[in-house]
Amino acid sequence: MRDLLETFENKNKGKKFVCEHVYPELTAVCPTTELPDFYTLRLLYEPDEKIVELKSLKLYLTSYRNEGIYHEELINKIIEDLKAVIEPNWIFIELEVAVRGGISTSVRRFWDKNEGDDIERAIEGI
Amino acid sequence: MRDLLETFENKNKGKKFVCEHVYPELTAVCPTTELPDFYTLRLLYEPDEKIVELKSLKLYLTSYRNEGIYHEELINKIIEDLKAVIEPNWIFIELEVAVRGGISTSVRRFWDKNEGDDIERAIEGI
Amino acid sequence: MRDLLETFENKNKGKKFVCEHVYPELTAVCPTTELPDFYTLRLLYEPDEKIVELKSLKLYLTSYRNEGIYHEELINKIIEDLKAVIEPNWIFIELEVAVRGGISTSVRRFWDKNEGDDIERAIEGI
Amino acid sequence: MRDLLETFENKNKGKKFVCEHVYPELTAVCPTTELPDFYTLRLLYEPDEKIVELKSLKLYLTSYRNEGIYHEELINKIIEDLKAVIEPNWIFIELEVAVRGGISTSVRRFWDKNEGDDIERAIEGI
Amino acid sequence: MRDLLETFENKNKGKKFVCEHVYPELTAVCPTTELPDFYTLRLLYEPDEKIVELKSLKLYLTSYRNEGIYHEELINKIIEDLKAVIEPNWIFIELEVAVRGGISTSVRRFWDKNEGDDIERAIEGI
Amino acid sequence: MRDLLETFENKNKGKKFVCEHVYPELTAVCPTTELPDFYTLRLLYEPDEKIVELKSLKLYLTSYRNEGIYHEELINKIIEDLKAVIEPNWIFIELEVAVRGGISTSVRRFWDKNEGDDIERAIEGI
Amino acid sequence: MRDLLETFENKNKGKKFVCEHVYPELTAVCPTTELPDFYTLRLLYEPDEKIVELKSLKLYLTSYRNEGIYHEELINKIIEDLKAVIEPNWIFIELEVAVRGGISTSVRRFWDKNEGDDIERAIEGI
Amino acid sequence: MRDLLETFENKNKGKKFVCEHVYPELTAVCPTTELPDFYTLRLLYEPDEKIVELKSLKLYLTSYRNEGIYHEELINKIIEDLKAVIEPNWIFIELEVAVRGGISTSVRRFWDKNEGDDIERAIEGI
Amino acid sequence: MRDLLETFENKNKGKKFVCEHVYPELTAVCPTTELPDFYTLRLLYEPDEKIVELKSLKLYLTSYRNEGIYHEELINKIIEDLKAVIEPNWIFIELEVAVRGGISTSVRRFWDKNEGDDIERAIEGI
Amino acid sequence: MRDLLETFENKNKGKKFVCEHVYPELTAVCPTTELPDFYTLRLLYEPDEKIVELKSLKLYLTSYRNEGIYHEELINKIIEDLKAVIEPNWIFIELEVAVRGGISTSVRRFWDKNEGDDIERAIEGI
Repeated sequence: MRDLLETFENKNKGKKFVCEHVYPELTAVCPTTELPDFYTLRLLYEPDEKIVELKSLKLYLTSYRNEGIYHEELINKIIEDLKAVIEPNWIFIELEVAVRGGISTSVRRFWDKNEGDDIERAIEGI
Repeated sequence: MRDLLETFENKNKGKKFVCEHVYPELTAVCPTTELPDFYTLRLLYEPDEKIVELKSLKLYLTSYRNEGIYHEELINKIIEDLKAVIEPNWIFIELEVAVRGGISTSVRRFWDKNEGDDIERAIEGI
Repeated sequence: MRDLLETFENKNKGKKFVCEHVYPELTAVCPTTELPDFYTLRLLYEPDEKIVELKSLKLYLTSYRNEGIYHEELINKIIEDLKAVIEPNWIFIELEVAVRGGISTSVRRFWDKNEGDDIERAIEGI
Repeated sequence: MRDLLETFENKNKGKKFVCEHVYPELTAVCPTTELPDFYTLRLLYEPDEKIVELKSLKLYLTSYRNEGIYHEELINKIIEDLKAVIEPNWIFIELEVAVRGGISTSVRRFWDKNEGDDIERAIEGI
Repeated sequence: MRDLLETFENKNKGKKFVCEHVYPELTAVCPTTELPDFYTLRLLYEPDEKIVELKSLKLYLTSYRNEGIYHEELINKIIEDLKAVIEPNWIFIELEVAVRGGISTSVRRFWDKNEGDDIERAIEGI
Repeated sequence: MRDLLETFENKNKGKKFVCEHVYPELTAVCPTTELPDFYTLRLLYEPDEKIVELKSLKLYLTSYRNEGIYHEELINKIIEDLKAVIEPNWIFIELEVAVRGGISTSVRRFWDKNEGDDIERAIEGI
Repeated sequence: MRDLLETFENKNKGKKFVCEHVYPELTAVCPTTELPDFYTLRLLYEPDEKIVELKSLKLYLTSYRNEGIYHEELINKIIEDLKAVIEPNWIFIELEVAVRGGISTSVRRFWDKNEGDDIERAIEGI
Repeated sequence: MRDLLETFENKNKGKKFVCEHVYPELTAVCPTTELPDFYTLRLLYEPDEKIVELKSLKLYLTSYRNEGIYHEELINKIIEDLKAVIEPNWIFIELEVAVRGGISTSVRRFWDKNEGDDIERAIEGI
Repeated sequence: MRDLLETFENKNKGKKFVCEHVYPELTAVCPTTELPDFYTLRLLYEPDEKIVELKSLKLYLTSYRNEGIYHEELINKIIEDLKAVIEPNWIFIELEVAVRGGISTSVRRFWDKNEGDDIERAIEGI
Repeated sequence: MRDLLETFENKNKGKKFVCEHVYPELTAVCPTTELPDFYTLRLLYEPDEKIVELKSLKLYLTSYRNEGIYHEELINKIIEDLKAVIEPNWIFIELEVAVRGGISTSVRRFWDKNEGDDIERAIEGI
């Protein structure tokens, strides 16, 4: 799947800015029940040399449509793929999961190139 | 009740991330009036080696349905049970109580493995 | 009025947690115009050895119904009564006043057992 | 105009608390176009020895109705008048201006008796 | 385009205050698809000696209507133009982009005269 | 109480128009529990020869503050008083009662000079 | 259960008015899964000679807490019980069911003493 | 004031369509208290041969800024002026008045060239 | 797909009531772009002898996940399947489509056993 | 411009259903001020033999970007173009115009193949 992600050069390298993308149409399959899960993904990062190309991001996210994968694996797989491909200064992802059994769930992680995971930012949701 | 809680292994141990669950269908019984109380529970924690299994969490919470228990006891019992079973790095719980006598009430507590209770986070509701 | 407030023992003493009560039905009388004032009260505190009993809190607040009292006096009287009766680790009160003359007003104060008044928390409304 | 502002004694001097007033009916005249401008004023301060009397505040604000004055002058004039009359520990004002040319505008300033202007608080809008 | 921006003198120089403008009608053209992009621009700055004249700001922003330009270039071009013309103490811009392919996007940057770019403020959106 | 209501002459008699007043500060006392009840009153009518004077309406409504009266009696008493005093072409009242025991309640009635009560309009809440 | 319902005399018989009660704390048990179901009940009726006593209504609704019953049975049982006890001119009930399997469900019925069921009103939710 | 209103020719005469204008910045003076009143005006009409020119409408409405006039007079004066100047097929006006004494008020009238006043439409607010 | 739909007997046959289901997780594939489409389905019907079983409804809707089908075909296929399986007195479906190209779309149809399609109800969305 | 609109065959001809499209990105130029106008377009129609192709609808609407045209002309031109190209059973358009001079405006028209313009539906906005 990682191959679906494309980037273009950040022409404003050296300037520090934030890119945020929200995608309410992420869906995958629960490995246990084989029923679909629905997610709203929120992604923030600070580009270093590369910026993720938006259409490729959509195709990458769409490719999970028929994959069986748990919430915790999904967030970590997406974050690792984006780290590998865009090599950002830092990256944050939040997955909001649609209500199941009356419980609504979300998972959040923040990773920084120099400091590693930052649980404070994950708690606050940035 | 604690026996109802099940966990599975955190395969992303070493990565720091936050799990949040919101359950608006928690209900117990007021020991004084013997009338039902209704709660919205908000639970956040950082998994260490274990993640709470969602269906078992629901069954655990459902098991309070006919228990007589006060707000303050309830929040502390749930937090102690989850500490014992999932051994998280930290855990936060907020109980919002449905309006009674025109007063709406909530109770919040945050506990950290190393630092113990953190009243700052409880004040801010994380 | 202070006599109306009752408490019960905090069985979770030593655990730090926050109790929040919101009461949108507080009403008193303006000493100048003799017309009723309407308030939404927000009260937060950290219990030490005592917890305020909810029904007694309601009766206490209801007892202002026909009292002539200004906003600033009211907030300070309530906070001093609660300090005396529940001896909390800290207490915060916000009074939102219903619109008068097109102006909506609120008053806020935070007091801590060790540090006294904390204007920072009053500014932020906690 | 400053003469319209009246105060009364702060009987809770020594206690630190915050007074907030929101007035969505402030209007003045644009000196360039001679058309009316509409503002929502948000005012916060910590009283020292004096508290602004609410009715006089309304009359003071109403007195701008036919004055030609720019946004930046208006906020600074109001803040200077209130500083002079109520001598607060600190004061904050935000003026939200009604949409003009599709652009909505607001202006904010925070002043402290000891520290002078505090741009951090102005940025955050307190 | 930069020539379209006009300023007037800040008569309150020495006082620190914040000006905020929100413009939901910014539109440019996507260089790839040649279809229009729609933006909501949020601009904050602290004036030093100059304040941007509102009508000129609108005409400046309107001038992008038929320009082909990417999101990241657009935010950086606007920020550089405003830096050059109003020479503010600091400036912040957020561009919210209308949904494309189901993804909603925003870009944020904060620049300070003395400290340069501040990624913390960009993350928090001030 | 009815004596508190004052009217002034409808100078636009012959023109048909609707007057609507919403008062969220109505309060009376529950005869059973002796605790206060809180109501939002919505009143619509078509003036014939008389219009209710607003300040007198407020004083009239304020006079219920310490009266013991049930919801159904209250709505019918207010509607009969207003019928007697302003002799409208028709009148509609809705009383929304603040939540008690987890149940929120409202009561509605519509009366027309020629047709009497109109249950259809009461159902729809006009 | 029907025995739990109490009424009092409608002293305004002959006047046509509507009583509406909303209860977001109705819960029963799903006969198939044995898991709790959560409902928001909306009840409207026009009293004839009797009005339902509010506290008894709450106790009646609370008595379903541990009953196994399907949505369609529940709405029809409540409506038949209320018809029998308060003998209203007409009655309408809507049950909103909490989300299950991602589907939110509601059921509505309107019954009139003279006309029987009225599907139009049920469609429109009155 | 009526002279301020300008019209232009309806080039789509014979086609039936509705024009709606909402103006939240209408203000006049209360003749009794001499304090300003604030209104949101909602105006709908079906043009016959003439359409009201928008800038002239604004200037016309602005001209009430320092006029002493009651709510009921104001709505009827505006409707009569617009009837005289644009000669519409029908016209509807709603004036929402800012809260005074805790009471929010609105006044509505609908007039049709052939049928005269239509109280049904005034009740429903169209 | 139709085979996935299961029903159970309507034990309240003869009573007229409405069942409404809202499913925000419907997704299919656009035959042209082969990209996923996302829908919110709203379904209302009056049961005759059969009621649709909720879990089977979910499985039926889930089965469109990888089908290539246009909006207009989808709504008509679902309505025809449900007509065939539950034989309702009438049925209404609304499909809200997620924004594409900046345009949000919805499609609505109402069918009655005796009267056939009813465009009025489709316009109003019931 | 009309040539930009494309249609495809309605395969469900004979079934009556409604298509609704909302486009918040319509923009044209004011002929008087030469400044851009911004619109939200709402379009509903009942297809007869043809359905408008969505991408062509977007390109058609985009083509107004640099056209000088008044609100009333715009709505009527769009409605006439769509009538000519898709020959619907009926069509409704609402144009909401972005605030200018503090006034927000909208224009609405409904046309039916057999009955011509229907002002009732235009008033109600369908």
